[in-house]
Amino acid sequence: MSAVDFESFVHELANVSGQAILPFFRTALGVEDKSRGQAFDPVTAADRAAEQAMRTLIRRNFPSHGVRGEEFPDDTPDADFVWILDPIDGTKSFIAGLPAWGTLIGLCREGQPCYGMMHQPFIRERFYGDGATARYRGPAGERRLSVRACESLETALMLTTSPLLMNEDDRARYVEVEKRVRLPRYGGDCYAYCMVAAGHVDLVVETNLKPYDILPLVPIIEGAGGIVTAWDGDSDLSSGRVVVAGDRRVHEAALKVLAG
Amino acid sequence: MSAVDFESFVHELANVSGQAILPFFRTALGVEDKSRGQAFDPVTAADRAAEQAMRTLIRRNFPSHGVRGEEFPDDTPDADFVWILDPIDGTKSFIAGLPAWGTLIGLCREGQPCYGMMHQPFIRERFYGDGATARYRGPAGERRLSVRACESLETALMLTTSPLLMNEDDRARYVEVEKRVRLPRYGGDCYAYCMVAAGHVDLVVETNLKPYDILPLVPIIEGAGGIVTAWDGDSDLSSGRVVVAGDRRVHEAALKVLAG
Repeated sequence: MSAVDFESFVHELANVSGQAILPFFRTALGVEDKSRGQAFDPVTAADRAAEQAMRTLIRRNFPSHGVRGEEFPDDTPDADFVWILDPIDGTKSFIAGLPAWGTLIGLCREGQPCYGMMHQPFIRERFYGDGATARYRGPAGERRLSVRACESLETALMLTTSPLLMNEDDRARYVEVEKRVRLPRYGGDCYAYCMVAAGHVDLVVETNLKPYDILPLVPIIEGAGGIVTAWDGDSDLSSGRVVVAGDRRVHEAALKVLAG
Repeated sequence: MSAVDFESFVHELANVSGQAILPFFRTALGVEDKSRGQAFDPVTAADRAAEQAMRTLIRRNFPSHGVRGEEFPDDTPDADFVWILDPIDGTKSFIAGLPAWGTLIGLCREGQPCYGMMHQPFIRERFYGDGATARYRGPAGERRLSVRACESLETALMLTTSPLLMNEDDRARYVEVEKRVRLPRYGGDCYAYCMVAAGHVDLVVETNLKPYDILPLVPIIEGAGGIVTAWDGDSDLSSGRVVVAGDRRVHEAALKVLAG
């Protein structure tokens, strides 16, 4: 069974999660703090409702598959096929009413991401890929996604969600990259990676990413011709420190600066 | 002639500017640097096309009115009625493909903002107001805009486009506010102010705003019950340093911290 067989099912997951989330977007809503008074980490009713809806659909259609999500305990995480779900990536944007959040739906086969989608149900756009190719569907029509060429850091447009999310040492190294690029820009969450895949942005440098923040995006970025590694250049992203670029020259230059 | 008479005309301006802008969003596009090698300040063909379209429509319907815009020289800026136009507020988001930009259309009568609209043609949503009332129309339906109560900085959600846009002294003072609030968040441009008006965000603190960045937003914020002043508490916004809050208690607390 190839990843392509899952495409229509992933669109269906996006549909049910979008229906679960939208009634909660831009409404007055109690915000739980799951970190109990530490760093602010909002969870919304929308997040839980959407993950529940997707888990139900997966169990009904693929009972042997595993599921890992942000909101509920892992379900058979060592199955051959494991779904990785993040119903609202960009919860801070979500609670601020800003549209730069999205639903991440990924599928791993034997631990390797083989299909991924980012869905923004309010804007009604989807970015999806299988590692070999990636596509877009939304208000701007339907098209193939492809990274753009960029010869150096000095000509690169870089996104990061916020340097405030980094520890002091990581931030100091990040700032060295920020000084070199043509234009740094904050905000974005999952949109940042999709904009690399779509050829509008050249570089994303982040830390503290959880598997569900990044694994569903890997087949989209790579399907569009982009490069995803950890800060040390390794393909293992479990450190949560990620460098994504559309052009290999920018990726190599960023790794070099981050290495100090 | 009251500001209300202009409402349908402002919607028409939003329509023509949206039609001019959308073909350029998320396309590969040459970016001019009007600051000539200094700080990166992108201008797009979309910006010019939209401002031209709006100026033409204004001249045809209200030949006695003045126009001030970002892209072209002022036209009769001392007329009784003067339109303030910023076709793409958030040009950096625009060129990065992110949706957090908008078209600002404002009308001043004898120097005072009396009508304003923020239009996002890609998402298809509009926030508009006349200082007494404010409304929303978009994918989330149609409704009245109203700020929310927030008792203190410690419970406030704050937005600012980027501290990188501030000079060192202003940034030091801004950071004191950032330390106090419950959740600071970067990014947003005109969306930040609309989210205060819509009751999702409590505070916006920014600097270096040009008249066309803020004047069209004033009737929306005030129409929703919010407060707009300069950092010194004055209603004159020509310093470009702006504090916007939904609740007077948060506004006063922010002014106190910014005063040092």
